[in-house]
Amino acid sequence: MKTSAYHQAAAAVLAGDVRASARLMRMLDDRMPDAAEVLRLLYAHTGRAQVIGITGNPGSGKSTLTSRLIGQWRRQGKKVGVLAVDPSSPFSGGAILGDRIRMMEHASDPGVFIRSLATRGALGGLSRSTSDTVHVMDAMGCDVVLIETVGVGQDEIDIVRTAHTTVVVLVPGLGDDIQAIKAGILEIADIFVVNKADLDGADRTVGDLRGLQMLLSEMPPWIPPIVRTVAARGEGVEELVEQLGHHQQFLTTHDAAQERNLMRARFVVSNLVREGIGQRVDRWLGQTSDGQALVAAVAQRQLDPYTAADQAELRTAAA
Amino acid sequence: MKTSAYHQAAAAVLAGDVRASARLMRMLDDRMPDAAEVLRLLYAHTGRAQVIGITGNPGSGKSTLTSRLIGQWRRQGKKVGVLAVDPSSPFSGGAILGDRIRMMEHASDPGVFIRSLATRGALGGLSRSTSDTVHVMDAMGCDVVLIETVGVGQDEIDIVRTAHTTVVVLVPGLGDDIQAIKAGILEIADIFVVNKADLDGADRTVGDLRGLQMLLSEMPPWIPPIVRTVAARGEGVEELVEQLGHHQQFLTTHDAAQERNLMRARFVVSNLVREGIGQRVDRWLGQTSDGQALVAAVAQRQLDPYTAADQAELRTAAA
Repeated sequence: MKTSAYHQAAAAVLAGDVRASARLMRMLDDRMPDAAEVLRLLYAHTGRAQVIGITGNPGSGKSTLTSRLIGQWRRQGKKVGVLAVDPSSPFSGGAILGDRIRMMEHASDPGVFIRSLATRGALGGLSRSTSDTVHVMDAMGCDVVLIETVGVGQDEIDIVRTAHTTVVVLVPGLGDDIQAIKAGILEIADIFVVNKADLDGADRTVGDLRGLQMLLSEMPPWIPPIVRTVAARGEGVEELVEQLGHHQQFLTTHDAAQERNLMRARFVVSNLVREGIGQRVDRWLGQTSDGQALVAAVAQRQLDPYTAADQAELRTAAA
Repeated sequence: MKTSAYHQAAAAVLAGDVRASARLMRMLDDRMPDAAEVLRLLYAHTGRAQVIGITGNPGSGKSTLTSRLIGQWRRQGKKVGVLAVDPSSPFSGGAILGDRIRMMEHASDPGVFIRSLATRGALGGLSRSTSDTVHVMDAMGCDVVLIETVGVGQDEIDIVRTAHTTVVVLVPGLGDDIQAIKAGILEIADIFVVNKADLDGADRTVGDLRGLQMLLSEMPPWIPPIVRTVAARGEGVEELVEQLGHHQQFLTTHDAAQERNLMRARFVVSNLVREGIGQRVDRWLGQTSDGQALVAAVAQRQLDPYTAADQAELRTAAA
């Protein structure tokens, strides 16, 4: 591809061309170098969209909530990008979340752009694909980009690091294991949603969250609000959208936002480096005879993996 | 530390010295270069332990099952290492699984060595800590090393890649979301356990798994057996140990094992490279003025992250 073609592709995305944007996203997923060139051109035009991460355990009703949020934003005339990330099926390449969203009411709305991603077995690859896709949706003029993901493990946390505002969805009646998980999510949530708030135990879940917040050694400048919703009936969704607006405002007015912006940039750059060298190393180890010999020596315990890693890095270092 | 000290530390681990081994594991967790030197010496003496990964969603009863398995192995006179990995609390640094195991019956048994790990916010760091710890447990003479982790996301899959045999624990009565997850775990499980098999729906879960196995386009040389257990009462644990033995035997006799051995070595080396450069990049981006300036330029959208990543990699490349 020539430089003029890069500019042409970038211009089409900036004009909101859905086909051109979708094509670019596919190319980015396939890690085509041309696509990265287009993204370089687009980057200066990004930063306008509000990027919201939404995560929670399976069964918490995230998808329904996502659908309701889209409806609310659409009524406000906003253009919405939805990125459904499914780190749970790394091999199948399936993207169940996205399929589900696609089947929903918003699938035919031209003001809603839906894209799904699943891991492809590549370490760290999902975070890169997520931030790439968010950049494209931002550049194509989405006012809101919603990243939906399942669970609250390290993957999900990496994914939501791409977001400005992170919503963690919980449901009443959590078992011990889920209580344990809370320790980690407390530190990533900007807004808590207790969905299915009509169920028994909702008060207790809200109380538990408040209790955990009290345990923090120092009060943060932003104390995550706890919003009760019944997504299936649309209850509480307006309040959630309102709280999302509050957080966005907080980010534009408070010093903490600046720090967070830097953190996000640091994360994206660091992740790109890791993935870049990781891909080269995997290719070298898997597809060159020197690399294969090195792996065989480690497997046969003739060479320790630490020495092997040093050699692999030297052999695949950036030119 | 001098070379003689490395040899001394390695000799203590090989003699099964618990304090020396625990000290080495802590040093490895802290990424002390001395510890890696000791590990280099130990590596040639590893490969004797059967390394078993056990994973499943919160509430599946993994911890109870783990405890029962330990009991069974101890009755057979085996020395057991248990590594509880908790990727769900990356910030708190807590290790809830390990605490739980420690409280159990085997905590005071000198033939059981228990260690817990939690992420420290470092991308890929957990996989490295896992394989390092497994190597030490193997070198100190554990006959079995059991890696227990929560969930079936990408993290967990990376963790279990360190194992020879992977056990996926399910429970009857799975919702839609969990069904979805199955697509991914089908490809990592060597043995399925349907725990709490006395509950309604156990037959259906077993049937669902069988159905999924039928969907595979070609029959693999090892078809994962489905073992029913009621861990709380110890039922089915003997059969599980038996199936673990069958899989170990399969690995020593079948060609597929050789391929798997290479895959594991490739994964460990690749992961060490990613983490090594990742740490250097994070340090450079976060702690040097050039790195901080680069991050600020990206945050202000004066520089795109792709160009920034290229620069960061060049500046932190291996000497």
